[in-house]
Order: sequence, then structure tokens, then C-alpha cells
Amino acid sequence: MAARPQNVGILAMEVYFPATAVRQDELEDHDKASKGKYTIGLGQDILAFCTDWEDVISMSMTVVQSLFEKYEIAPDRIGRLDVGSETIVDKSKAIKTWLMKLFEESGNADIEGVDSTNACYGGTAALFNCVDWVESTAWDGRFALVVATDSAVYAEGPARPSGGAGAVAMLIGPDAPLVIDRRCSATHMEHAYDFYKPNLASEYPVVDGHLSQKCYLMALSSCYRRFCTKFQKIQGRQFSLMEADFLVFHSPYNKLVQKSFARLVFEDFSRNKSFVDEAVAETFHHFSKLSLEESYTNRDLEKASQQVAKSQYNEKVIPGTLIPKQIGNTYTVSLYAGLASLIHNKADSLVGKRILMFSYGSGLASSMFTVCAEQGLHPFNLSGIQEKLDLSARLASRTMVSPEEFGITMSLMETRYGAKSFTPESEYKVLQPGTFYLTEVDDLYRRSYARVPPSVPKLCEKSKSNGFVH
Amino acid sequence: MAARPQNVGILAMEVYFPATAVRQDELEDHDKASKGKYTIGLGQDILAFCTDWEDVISMSMTVVQSLFEKYEIAPDRIGRLDVGSETIVDKSKAIKTWLMKLFEESGNADIEGVDSTNACYGGTAALFNCVDWVESTAWDGRFALVVATDSAVYAEGPARPSGGAGAVAMLIGPDAPLVIDRRCSATHMEHAYDFYKPNLASEYPVVDGHLSQKCYLMALSSCYRRFCTKFQKIQGRQFSLMEADFLVFHSPYNKLVQKSFARLVFEDFSRNKSFVDEAVAETFHHFSKLSLEESYTNRDLEKASQQVAKSQYNEKVIPGTLIPKQIGNTYTVSLYAGLASLIHNKADSLVGKRILMFSYGSGLASSMFTVCAEQGLHPFNLSGIQEKLDLSARLASRTMVSPEEFGITMSLMETRYGAKSFTPESEYKVLQPGTFYLTEVDDLYRRSYARVPPSVPKLCEKSKSNGFVH
Repeated sequence: MAARPQNVGILAMEVYFPATAVRQDELEDHDKASKGKYTIGLGQDILAFCTDWEDVISMSMTVVQSLFEKYEIAPDRIGRLDVGSETIVDKSKAIKTWLMKLFEESGNADIEGVDSTNACYGGTAALFNCVDWVESTAWDGRFALVVATDSAVYAEGPARPSGGAGAVAMLIGPDAPLVIDRRCSATHMEHAYDFYKPNLASEYPVVDGHLSQKCYLMALSSCYRRFCTKFQKIQGRQFSLMEADFLVFHSPYNKLVQKSFARLVFEDFSRNKSFVDEAVAETFHHFSKLSLEESYTNRDLEKASQQVAKSQYNEKVIPGTLIPKQIGNTYTVSLYAGLASLIHNKADSLVGKRILMFSYGSGLASSMFTVCAEQGLHPFNLSGIQEKLDLSARLASRTMVSPEEFGITMSLMETRYGAKSFTPESEYKVLQPGTFYLTEVDDLYRRSYARVPPSVPKLCEKSKSNGFVH
Repeated sequence: MAARPQNVGILAMEVYFPATAVRQDELEDHDKASKGKYTIGLGQDILAFCTDWEDVISMSMTVVQSLFEKYEIAPDRIGRLDVGSETIVDKSKAIKTWLMKLFEESGNADIEGVDSTNACYGGTAALFNCVDWVESTAWDGRFALVVATDSAVYAEGPARPSGGAGAVAMLIGPDAPLVIDRRCSATHMEHAYDFYKPNLASEYPVVDGHLSQKCYLMALSSCYRRFCTKFQKIQGRQFSLMEADFLVFHSPYNKLVQKSFARLVFEDFSRNKSFVDEAVAETFHHFSKLSLEESYTNRDLEKASQQVAKSQYNEKVIPGTLIPKQIGNTYTVSLYAGLASLIHNKADSLVGKRILMFSYGSGLASSMFTVCAEQGLHPFNLSGIQEKLDLSARLASRTMVSPEEFGITMSLMETRYGAKSFTPESEYKVLQPGTFYLTEVDDLYRRSYARVPPSVPKLCEKSKSNGFVH
């Protein structure tokens, strides 16, 4: 029996987000919302969105091809490719089959894996599948590739600012700089109708906002307790947040991430008072008579927790929030966009650190697991990933669209979802070099794509955009 | 490092199909189709279908609960549950989350896995995920559970008789009587528009029948060649059909299975003339100048191949065709309904035999792999599975519905797909004991289910049905 490969995890990653975006403070003004409702209330800065030139298929092709080119990965070195998405373009044909176009030239069709679906959890399901494949007897020495891609759009109204769009690709293999510890994964799944998409003809979800937040926090607590139990069994000592150097949460909007971290501090207090400072314990003491159920919704506890958790939040959580705050909710992508943000902010200083990850998908599916940062080997090391992500420049080079134009685009997109017989016509054809884009959906709903040449000048100013207008 | 568990595979399996069905010969008459068009042309006997009392969620609950009860599996012994399906009831909420209802009482929510999607391939993706999980460091000693569930319905017209409905559940773990050899899995994936579901509001697919068959056969050939190469590398000797005791194919309709086996015989001839009898070689010699492309569509080759392959087909393939012929196409379920048929027909005599499996999902994704039958340990052995499947009695106890009534039900179902605010009203409430069924879809599309008590008399004759009318 061959030995299992060691330290399996993420070797490399690439993030993609559309070049079209709208500022949340401008949306507040436009929507006549109270000042700070989106920027502080939701904690969001900017919302990225697709025009009809892009969709989850094109974004997934863009991010995979970019990863291949940046890391000089030959497509025949991939043996498995799993996609996570909850943006359904076709109910039968997987996004994965579209990605096979990128492998055609190499002649490599021997690539296992299809699409995993459950709301925002699909990316984590894809990641676990790929890591397990590398650790199984099925592994043939090639890399696995995890792709997550989503466009989060909401009907006009209070939920719309919690949208976003993006894609991520992660190369999986042994001796990784970001090791996934599968022994200590803790999962909580149950049946809930907090957020779902039963109206098949509409891209918009049905959302019970209050239930959704409660389900998220309840799943977070369950996973955390389960994780702590498993950790103690494996490591022989108790787990507390002191053991976690950084935390990354699935981020529908940043405010929920703030609440989540605060919740975990309260969980530590509830498990063992000695896990928190005396002052913190004193604050929480007032809430120790709350039932578990009440503790998820009590506003005073929520405020007090966030207050006492603030300094730790700044240190351990904020570094993993950049992209989600800058592009919005990206469903399956969100957690890994957070991880990319952490690498962007910390790079090699992460080596030796433990990152606690929380993945949540409504319906519901959730997991908590750790990523242990290691040295890695160039180009599969943290500073290499940081450099190739090139996040500051890419986030800054987007085209900001007015709230009015964003609304017009959303109305156009309502006519595109599930539609046939059209060619894209949004005037915001803002596509960076190397971006795949939709060219046509024919009378049989068959989609065609093309790619902006990757070699065109990076930011070719044209017309009203500061992105490449193709 | 802990050793990997050995001989991971299928420990137990259960199949479910609706008690409502229509005879293909009666459909021929009703449709004024030529005699034998469905029964010989498609090779199908009976078509099972859901009324509005059942759907893919209820069928998956029925089959899982039945497996638990027949094998006395406590729900807390499951650590992973993957679902394969291409029947989308909700675009975000996984069928998996519904199945968590069956685990609530046990308090077990720590169950990884969500839904895998790519046409009929999702069941195989789920199976591979579960086997890999058991072989990975994530495995905690509990069982994995694979569930596939689908309702195949087509618009009125020539495709309608190729429908069907059913579900399968397979318990996965080490020391199995049906060992999955993951080292030798051969996969072929590529982008194709042969069968897809882009019309989101309709349950019906868009199908290019000719392309679909060609894609299937092309993928079969690719997988077979790749499988033979891998086999030789691992086993040190050439593979041919002489090495396969039995073969099970994904079966959209039986005629394609006949063509598929014949194709493999031709593949053997093309690889090495000595793999086939002299007489067979002589027959095939006439076609050896065909291009690969032509060989997939040449009708003379098709007929000649089926002729020379017939005796081997009868011996090696027919035992795995019973359920697919008796219930119709079940998409993700089909291949495993075939495997269950083989166990039903051969039971313990399979021990020591190699079963070659071919999984195909349009779009497209396909894999070939082997199942090696072993002794197993009661109740996880082949005769135990055969007995618990109880197929002959269950297939015989269904309610045959007239083609007219079938058509009326299909029309009713068109109004149900993606609908809200209804309670089931089909007069064919034909539900066997232990069957879960839909009770309501409310104004927010939320679905409710109930279960026919498993303890009611097995076939309680009432009204016009010979199934249990609840």
C-alpha cells in the first residue's frame, strides 16, 4: 500500500472579479437609505457585478486560465477539477464541462469532478472533494483544481446592496503552503428554509433575513463546539481562540463577520471562563442566564460581544476581509476570497500560523476547519501567491458605475437570466486583458464565449471606462 | 500516519421506484407508434413515473430510510452523505439538506457532502467522493452514504417513452462485498450540448438525440481505451473484455446498452485482433477502414457488432439490465439500478468476479471503473443485499396505469414543476408502506412531506390500485 501524500492543501490561488462595480455609499444616497446603512450597517464598501458580457461560466474560465498562465501550469497536469456554484445557468450541464474547453488543446480529458451545489457551501464541498482525492488511492500524482464562481443578485429593495460577483481557482496538491487539516473538520448540516432559490425562472433567491442570520450563527456555534471537541481528541489539549492566529468567515456582508467573531468569543466564555480576559468574563457574566436560543438573537449580547471582541477582531479577522468588503457577497467564492485577502495582507508572515475557516451555505450546510500556513516551495509559497494575486492594483483599476447605471444593468440582467436568442449589449463592456466573455446565446440556448487577448495593454483607457473597453 | 482502510466500496444498497408505471407496449399502441418501437427499438418494458405525491426529495428520503431499516443502520453511524441528481427542485438548497431530516432524531448533524450535478453522472461523482473520503485522512470510521435520485420526464412526443423515475442509496465503507477500484478509474470529460436543461422554468431537457448517442459512444470508447492503458500499467498485462465477467452501463434505454457492449467488442478488435474470435475478426475486418468518427455512426457496423456480440451480451450484460428495462431511464440512478439488477440475478455467484461499469452524463462527463465482488460479511454480503432488495416482488407489485392516465399525470406535473401554493391532487396516490410523500408546497415554495407508516400491510388493495392507496 502506497503511503498517503503529506500536507495536502492549497498550492496556488487566483481570484477574479468583474471590472464593473458600484460604491456602497453612492448606493445609500441613491436609495435614500440612512447614511451608513450599507457601509456601516452591512459593513460593505463596493459591490462588483456582471453585465451581460460576463456570467459564472466566463468568470470561471477567466480565473482558471489566469491561474494556469501566472503559475505556468500545463493543463495536462490537472487530474481532478471540482466546481462550486449556486448560480444555475443550466440545470443539467455542469460549469465543469465548460471548463473542459481550456483543456482541449492539451488533449487532457481525464479529469474527474463535477459541480457541487448547496448555496454558498459549494466551494468548500469542492475543496474537500479535491483534498480527499489527493489523499485517496485514486490520486495519480497530478494536481487537483477547485473552482468557485458566483453572481449574487437580489431583487430591487433592501437586499440588493448585499450582492456581489467573483470567482476563485485553487490548485491542490501535497506539500502545500496552505495545508488543509481534514482530520479536524467539523460539520453541521440541517434542513432550513433561510435562503433558497425555488423560483426557477428567476435569478433572485427567496430570503428570510432574520432566520438566515440566526441559522448562520447557530451553525457557527455548532461547528465551533464540534471542532473544539475534535481538536482536543486529536491534539490532547483544549482549543480556544488563543489557538487561532487568524479567522476567515463566509461573508455575505462584513457586519455578519463581526458578529460571528464576537459570537466565538462568547462561545469561549461559555465553554470555560478562563479562555477569556477577566474584564470580558465580567461583561459576559450578565448574559450567562440566556438560553442558547435567546443568545443568538439578544441585541444587548450582540453589542457587548462586539465591543469586547474588537481588538482581537482587528488583529485576527480584518486581514481576511478585504476582498469581500470590496466586491460584495460572492456566495461559494466568499470564504476563499477572504483567504486570498489574508495572504495579500500577511504573505510569508503567516508561516507557522493556524487559520480557522468557517464555511456556511443556507439550506443549510456548514463546516469549520483549519488551514496551517507553511513555507511551501516557489512558486507555491505565500509571497509568490501574494505577488501573483496583485490585489491592490486590480481592486483599484475597476470601473465605478453610478447607482443609476447599476440599476439599469440589473434590469437588463433580469431579461437575460434563462434567456435564449440574444447577444450581449450592455454598454459596460469593461473587460480586463485575459477576460473571457459571452458572445452569444443562440436559439437553442447554446452559449458562446471569446477571450480578450491577455497581451493587450493592461489598462487601455478608452471611452468612459478606466478598464479595458473591448 | 494511519494506514488507509482496505477494500473500500459498496457495503449495502437499496433501490426505490414509484409504484405507478405504464407499459411500453401500451404506450406504443396509444401513441400509434409502429409495433416494437419502444419495446424493441428502445428495448424498454415499463416506465415508472412520479405523480404529484412524489418527487426526487421524497424518493431520496424513502430509499435512505428503507436502507437504514433493512440493515438496521443507526443514523449516527453515517459521517458523509453525497447526493447525485439532475432533477432541480431548488437551485440553491441541496436535496442533501432535506435528507438531514432523517438524522435529526439521532442528533447527528456532522455529515459532510452536498449534491453533485452533471446530468446522469452525478451518482458516480457522489460515489467517488464518498470512496475518496473513506480513503482520506478525513475519515473518522463512520459509513458514507451515496444517494442518487431522479425523475426523467420528456415533453409529449417521441422522447417521452424514454422517461423513468427512481432512487438508490448505497452504504460505503471498508471490507465491502463490492470493492471500487479507484486506482484504475478512467474518465473522459468535455464540453458538449447533447442534452441539457437551459429552460429553467421547464422540467424538460433540450435534447439532440443523434449527438447524444454519438457523444455517449465516443465517451465510452475514450474511457475504455484509457481504462485499458491504466489497467496494463497497474496489472502488468493487457485488458480485454475477456477480463470482464460482467458489464453495467448507464442505460437511458436498453438499446443503447446493446450498442455500447457491441462497440467495446469492436474496440477490442481495433486494439488487438487476438482479443476476439476469428469469426468476429473477419466480420469486423470489413469495417477496419472506417475513420474513428465514421465508426460511431455507421449503421452496418452497428448491426454487425451487435450480431457478433450477442452471445457475450446475453451472458455478461443482460443480468445488469433488469431494473432499467422495468422502470426506464433514471438518470443518475440508472447505472446503480443496473448494478442492483446484477446482484439480484447473480448474488453470491458474483464473488471473485470483475464488473466493468460505465457512467455517462451529457454535457459531458463519463467514467469507466471496476467493481470487484468479494465475500463480505453478513449483512453486508451479496446474498444479503439480494434478499433485502426483494426486487421480483417489488417490481411485480406496482400499479399499471393506462397511457391516457399517464398522459394526464404528465400534464398535471407540468403545472407542478417550480410551482408554489398547492397540495397534491393526483388520484394515483399509490404509495407502498414506508414511502415518503409530498403533502404541501406553501406560498413561499416551502415543501412538506409525510410518510406512509412502514407497518401497514404490504399490499393493501383499495380502490383501483394494487399498491397501497394512502
